[in-house]
Amino acid sequence: MSNSLEAVRAGDRLALARLLTQVENQTPAGRQALNDLFPYTGRAHLVGVTGSPGTGKSSLVNRLAYAYRHPPQGQLPRRVAVVAVDPSSPFTGGAVLGDRVRMRDLTGDPGVFIRSMAARGALGGLARSTADVVQVLDAAGFELILIETVGAGQSEVDIARLAHTTLVVESPGMGDDIQAIKAGILEIADVLVVNKADRPGVDHTERALRAMLELAHPARRQFAGHHGAAMDATATAVDETPAEELWLPPVLRLIATTGVGVAELAQAVDQHADYLRRSGEWKRREAARLQAELEMLIQATLMQRWRQTLSDGVYEEVFARLAERQLSPYEALERLIQ
Amino acid sequence: MSNSLEAVRAGDRLALARLLTQVENQTPAGRQALNDLFPYTGRAHLVGVTGSPGTGKSSLVNRLAYAYRHPPQGQLPRRVAVVAVDPSSPFTGGAVLGDRVRMRDLTGDPGVFIRSMAARGALGGLARSTADVVQVLDAAGFELILIETVGAGQSEVDIARLAHTTLVVESPGMGDDIQAIKAGILEIADVLVVNKADRPGVDHTERALRAMLELAHPARRQFAGHHGAAMDATATAVDETPAEELWLPPVLRLIATTGVGVAELAQAVDQHADYLRRSGEWKRREAARLQAELEMLIQATLMQRWRQTLSDGVYEEVFARLAERQLSPYEALERLIQ
Repeated sequence: MSNSLEAVRAGDRLALARLLTQVENQTPAGRQALNDLFPYTGRAHLVGVTGSPGTGKSSLVNRLAYAYRHPPQGQLPRRVAVVAVDPSSPFTGGAVLGDRVRMRDLTGDPGVFIRSMAARGALGGLARSTADVVQVLDAAGFELILIETVGAGQSEVDIARLAHTTLVVESPGMGDDIQAIKAGILEIADVLVVNKADRPGVDHTERALRAMLELAHPARRQFAGHHGAAMDATATAVDETPAEELWLPPVLRLIATTGVGVAELAQAVDQHADYLRRSGEWKRREAARLQAELEMLIQATLMQRWRQTLSDGVYEEVFARLAERQLSPYEALERLIQ
Repeated sequence: MSNSLEAVRAGDRLALARLLTQVENQTPAGRQALNDLFPYTGRAHLVGVTGSPGTGKSSLVNRLAYAYRHPPQGQLPRRVAVVAVDPSSPFTGGAVLGDRVRMRDLTGDPGVFIRSMAARGALGGLARSTADVVQVLDAAGFELILIETVGAGQSEVDIARLAHTTLVVESPGMGDDIQAIKAGILEIADVLVVNKADRPGVDHTERALRAMLELAHPARRQFAGHHGAAMDATATAVDETPAEELWLPPVLRLIATTGVGVAELAQAVDQHADYLRRSGEWKRREAARLQAELEMLIQATLMQRWRQTLSDGVYEEVFARLAERQLSPYEALERLIQ
């Protein structure tokens, strides 16, 4: 292993920041470093934090990081990394305003590292670069990695799939607009958080979330079997899984600005990690995660190589003829793949 | 065009059934027929019908087909095909029990054709074969093609994407278990149907569906912009789309066993087709559909060719080493792709 990788492993923040830039830019040195560091990964607890803009997600992540750095008596502080992913932001890797704001309480703490990521036209996209950055932080010895995703849609779900534990953040005061109902988000939630719990409408928001969780149970049982879910007797009978192996996502109230409820959230995150380890789910998620990552890489590489074989404008021309029904899909395929 | 294709286009049912078997088995003759028939496609209204087992989906499809064959006075009967897709069924193409039951009212009617499809290990899977079968039925002159999907998950969503109009069927009496909340389903619904509306709990089910539609509005506006959605003033202001261009999915009550509400459902389906044509959405969905189909074919073909380059057991061996962290994802990729 090179000196710079040794430095990263030893906690050198500058070496880490430089390496992450290499990795994000997909340089050969970055690629090599990922290979060299991979054997040291697999130790961190990866926690995804997702929710609409305006739910106070960043403050919550900030508070949560602080809570792990200042645990209740008798517990050791843990090293925490934050990866803030914003598919809509042109900024990356550096001093965006949000970072400075969030750094206020954490600044100067060598046990915390914060990295902002933004969309690039990279191989496999943002989910790919985020996976790479998380791998480096894992190898660098961070015990908790909080992956915060702004924005939504498929990319958010893809990024959440990188995590062992997914927090979905809502807040009252956005009318009836509950984000969690959006495709896929509720199914991947391990912990639901109602932030800004001092605002009017919090009862309504919490009730709506609980109702949606109830409604989602059959779906969770049937289609998201890799996530622990219902704890009711029916579910147990259907699943034939012992009740103690199941995880019912808790709904927690929190006020990130004052810190109320943050300790309970940190505890719920730890309990979920315990559940994953106890039930064997941790290992299954790791294998599924790596398999998904490998297949994503293979597919992206094959598609990229294929695109390089195409002359300019050929795809557009073939598709136009398909849309006019002059070519069938199979004929279009034959023209595009030799 | 061959004699047999002429026969299919002229309404010969035996020729059609034989051709569909060729197409499902992906024979060279089937592939050739798809190419030859493709210029005659694009006329049918494709209607997806999805919902959990036990919601009475098949009876509903049966009734709906019957309603189009026996329209109100002043309207002409239309030719209807039913494609019943069951990813969990080992049966295909033939005389499964369900077909016989549903044939009771439709039997002997040359304007109705019913085909059952089941999962195969085929290129691109069931969504692929369903697309091919639908193309043949379209070219054969069926004006309405009802694509019924049992089961759920990604394959159901993929199949629903083949349709111009998607009906999501629920029923009361399954407790609070609302299927539509499941990832992606609510977002693709153009018409929601509460079947078995004579059962207790129907008010609750309808209310829950309406509440979820309300909740889903922001998500629909933001992430499913290709589907018409909210008609409230806010949505219009945000979208800057004229209100008359938007489609608010209706929630309809129905009793498939007696036929109550079926005429209204047939009408809603026709109204949605009108909306699609009027708004230009029909053309956009057709182009998106064909593009998705082409990319699905390209990806499947590339992956298939790549798999053929692998010796037996190589993938499993490489993945095992990845899971043990002896190989990084990029190293695994390099071993699997030359």
